[in-house]
Amino acid sequence: MFVLGIDPGLSRCGYGVVEQIPAAGSQRARSEAVGLGVICTAPNESTAQRLATQMRELRCLIDEFRPAVVAVERVFFQVNARTAMGVAQVAGLAMALASDTGAEVVEYAPNEVKQAVAGWGGADKAQMQRMVCELLALDELPIPADAADAAAVALCHLSRTGWHRAAARSRSIAR
Amino acid sequence: MFVLGIDPGLSRCGYGVVEQIPAAGSQRARSEAVGLGVICTAPNESTAQRLATQMRELRCLIDEFRPAVVAVERVFFQVNARTAMGVAQVAGLAMALASDTGAEVVEYAPNEVKQAVAGWGGADKAQMQRMVCELLALDELPIPADAADAAAVALCHLSRTGWHRAAARSRSIAR
Repeated sequence: MFVLGIDPGLSRCGYGVVEQIPAAGSQRARSEAVGLGVICTAPNESTAQRLATQMRELRCLIDEFRPAVVAVERVFFQVNARTAMGVAQVAGLAMALASDTGAEVVEYAPNEVKQAVAGWGGADKAQMQRMVCELLALDELPIPADAADAAAVALCHLSRTGWHRAAARSRSIAR
Repeated sequence: MFVLGIDPGLSRCGYGVVEQIPAAGSQRARSEAVGLGVICTAPNESTAQRLATQMRELRCLIDEFRPAVVAVERVFFQVNARTAMGVAQVAGLAMALASDTGAEVVEYAPNEVKQAVAGWGGADKAQMQRMVCELLALDELPIPADAADAAAVALCHLSRTGWHRAAARSRSIAR
């Protein structure tokens, strides 16, 4: 089962496709990154053109992986209304496209994601990159940070649904 | 040439398709409503499902009329952050879908629309309905008000591009 995590943004939208691989025989349950990246748009384009680019690329991602769940980082307007507008609009595109394919759509606040992945809500970008690297058993730190943030949203969802607890149990049994 | 006006909203998104008909012989230039309505979503559905419905319906509208211009009422976050989120997201869907078909996308603030259509930025809904009725030579007031608001956004665009001034000139010549 694929979970697509989205760290929305108009200029840069991070995505992380995480596969849940159940325990089988001596193989412990684990989460594996099958796609990490960032959709970038050109600053000289209009907002509408940039939204169209994000829509096309998000649609390609969803069509390719057909995720069962799309987990989107929740937007707050309090911080910066100007930036938040583009973030909210790209989050809306992801949610609409995901729901249109029948995927479950969930939203998590940034501090929920940090709490679930790094253990505390105030974790910085570097700590999050290291934890994503650890949880997905990557050979190197996921770069850019937006891709790691997006994978963290997917991992947050798996953690909330008990996957990581189950994976940890299966890990201790397998040892 | 069709101009699609959008009054975005998650629960109700107004739309108005206005056709520019140039002067021909003794026929004066005019604007004609070819489609007025509201896309409604069910309050018991999730935000993602409602966004998906708005996306599908907006795509159908754009595919049907292939508007040269899509004019969207600009969203402001200051008013009500909770409602503004859905409004911003539906505006983003309309902009992305429109740009994807190559349409020109423009945004107008609510008071610009009121100024252009009713002559002053503080016009109320009833005044806007009457002015839209007058400018589009409708037999009766456009109902619901969201549809009139959307048509007003399209008329605002035509007014800004000099269409109504040209139409008025052609009207006085034809008389």
